[in-house]
Parts: sequence; C-alpha cells; structure tokens
Amino acid sequence: MSDGDLHLAPMHRILKKAGAERVSEEAAEELRKALESIGLKIANDALDFTKHAGRKTVKAEDIKIVVKRLL
Amino acid sequence: MSDGDLHLAPMHRILKKAGAERVSEEAAEELRKALESIGLKIANDALDFTKHAGRKTVKAEDIKIVVKRLL
Repeated sequence: MSDGDLHLAPMHRILKKAGAERVSEEAAEELRKALESIGLKIANDALDFTKHAGRKTVKAEDIKIVVKRLL
Repeated sequence: MSDGDLHLAPMHRILKKAGAERVSEEAAEELRKALESIGLKIANDALDFTKHAGRKTVKAEDIKIVVKRLL
C-alpha cells in the first residue's frame, strides 16, 4: 500500500494511550504501515461481501463481518 | 477506545483503493473503529516488548515483532 493514507499524529496518540512514555518516529511510522496494510486487507475482504450481496455500496455490515472473522 | 484518533477521510481512501464504487458513511466509521481497536491492541502488546527490553522508548522493532505475530 502506498504511504500517506493514515496520518502520523494519530499513531503517536494511540501509542501514548497505550501507556508509552516515549515513542520513536520510526515506531509511529511502523504502526502506520501496519494499520494501512490491515485496513486495505479488511477493505478488500469487505468488498467481496459487498459484491456477493449484489451491491455497489460498501455498507457497515460488510466491514463488521470481516472484522468479526479477523479478531 | 475513544473516537477520533483516526480520521474518517483516510478510511474512504482505503476503501476506494480496494475497489469500492461507493462507500456508506457507516462503513467508513466501522473501518475507523476497527483500525483504532487493532491499533490500540498492537500498541499495548508493543509496550510489553518495550518494557521487557528495559526501555522507556517504543521503537519500531517493538511494533514489528507484534505485527509479525499478528498477521
């Protein structure tokens, strides 16, 4: 996935929320890359459910069914 | 996790990148919630590795080791 879909600042916030005292820039960047990959994987899988239902609009239920199977 | 760490616009971009023709607001919101939860889970687990290494700074390697085990 290309860079830049997710912003870096929220990664710092998430890591601080988890209790991090200090966060390296590289760690925030790594978390961003991971969430972008996971996000694209969820989106791709959700699209299969969208199409399977004969729809062109991705609905929340398509995301939910994928995430439920993922976690 | 509280709302708002991740923005909604990137969720639309990720879903479009996966090939979505149309995306409901609720679907984008659902993807945001999922990625926030997964992000916090990765961050919490990474912190364990940070502390285990006797550091106070989260490094990229802490994130990488968690993501490797997750995917």
